[in-house]
This record gives sequence, structure tokens and C-alpha cells, in this order.
Amino acid sequence: MSTRTKKHESGCLVAHAVDLLGDRWTLLLLRDMMLYGKQTYGEFLAAGEGIATNVLAERLQHLEAAGIVTRTRDPDNRRSNLYRLTEKGLGLAPALLEIIRWSGGQRRLTAARRKLIDRIEHDRDGLLAEIRARCQSGVTGK
Amino acid sequence: MSTRTKKHESGCLVAHAVDLLGDRWTLLLLRDMMLYGKQTYGEFLAAGEGIATNVLAERLQHLEAAGIVTRTRDPDNRRSNLYRLTEKGLGLAPALLEIIRWSGGQRRLTAARRKLIDRIEHDRDGLLAEIRARCQSGVTGK
Repeated sequence: MSTRTKKHESGCLVAHAVDLLGDRWTLLLLRDMMLYGKQTYGEFLAAGEGIATNVLAERLQHLEAAGIVTRTRDPDNRRSNLYRLTEKGLGLAPALLEIIRWSGGQRRLTAARRKLIDRIEHDRDGLLAEIRARCQSGVTGK
Repeated sequence: MSTRTKKHESGCLVAHAVDLLGDRWTLLLLRDMMLYGKQTYGEFLAAGEGIATNVLAERLQHLEAAGIVTRTRDPDNRRSNLYRLTEKGLGLAPALLEIIRWSGGQRRLTAARRKLIDRIEHDRDGLLAEIRARCQSGVTGK
């Protein structure tokens, strides 16, 4: 059947993404980086959802291995690393925004959330540029 | 800090979605329904990734409980159910397409995959309409 053929032609693009995104924590880490500009282990750990230290370490390692984030030494604190999205990682911003928009459609929204959804719907490019600027702040070189 | 305040205002929209999407299989099931028009347990089971029967049953139950799919008796086979996306489920199509687009940017593409990515980029509304029509085919009433 053509359906069956088409499956293998396009389906594994989703499978490829699922290998990266298909766990509870990865999307939350992307959110923390894109929307809140978090860059350090301590900042990720402080997120409201209570990620365990070993899970966080494993997820960051996985994202680094996948080329989604880079890890550099924090110039202000040599015992700490900074994790920042690469171009490949920033490329996930539109997907994250669509997920947020969908989620926003399911719930009563506070004014702040409504504002975020409005920006996704009416100022998507501006919001994407803001995310890019936020994620690249402090990046020297590279 | 304002960053901290903003987190709780918008962050849990992602957490809400993650509760649904944050596992390996859910996105693959959405793909099977949206892109290939799969509707039955047997069709989902036949996907290339080899989902286990108990995991599939649990995922479908979860999606039904979350209002993402409806389950109806197959009129052509009373021992089988049809699973179809609800409006809420169809609302995830833009997020799935963005994920596919991102994934397509990371890999060498076959002609068929290139065509899908092109449609996402240049005929997104047409593709979304096609997905909607595919997912609603055979739906009587409701």
C-alpha cells in the first residue's frame, strides 16, 4: 500500500526527533533555556518541576552529545559550566512555541500566559528573535 | 526576580504538554494518525518502531483519557476499535510539523522527505487541511 511506503519515507523524521525529545525533561530544559535564559546546572535544578541531579546531568550530557547544547566553562565561576543552545538547538524553538500554543488552548490563561500565546500567534518572528538573543547573550566567539 | 516569576506564569504550559507528549511513543502515534491515517490497534502495532502491545494499549488509553483521541467500535469489524484524533488532538498537528521540519534540517533527505518538508515550509495550511481530512475520514456524526 502507498500508505505503508510513505511511512518509511517520512516517518523516521519523527522517530529521529523522538529519540531526542521523547522524555519528560528535555522539553522542560529547552523551555528553561529558551524562555528564561537559564544556562547553569544550578539554574536548571531550581526549576519548579524538581528534576533529580543525576537525571539532569544525564540529560545535559545527552543534549551536548546530540549537538543541541554546548558546554563551556563559566568565566565568572571556574567550578561551573554554562550550557547554551547551538544553532541546532535554537532550531527547536518553533516546535516549542507550537507546543506552548497548543497547551495554552487547553487551559484558562493568566494574563501573562495569554500575552505569551498572543505573541506566538501574532509576533512569532519577534519572539523567535528574542529567544535567539536571550540564548546567545554572553556567548563570546563560536 | 522577574525571571523567576515569569517561569511559573508561562512555564507550566510546557509542563502540561510534557505530561502528554513526553514519552517516546506518543509522538509516533500522533504521526501514524496524522500522516498515515492509521486508526486501529493493529495498524499502530505494525509501525516500524516495534511498540509492545501493552505499551500501545496503555498509550491509547492515556490519549483517550486526555481527550486527544476518541475510541469507537469499528462498524466493519465489531471486535475492533477505531481511534481517531479529536479537535484537541488535531491541534497538535502544527507542533508535529515543526518537529518534522527541525528533524528534516538535520539529515540528508530522500525526495519524498524533501517534499514533505517543502510542504511544511510552503503549503503548511494545505497540509494541515489534508491531515484534518485524513483524520476525519470515516467519522460519522460527532
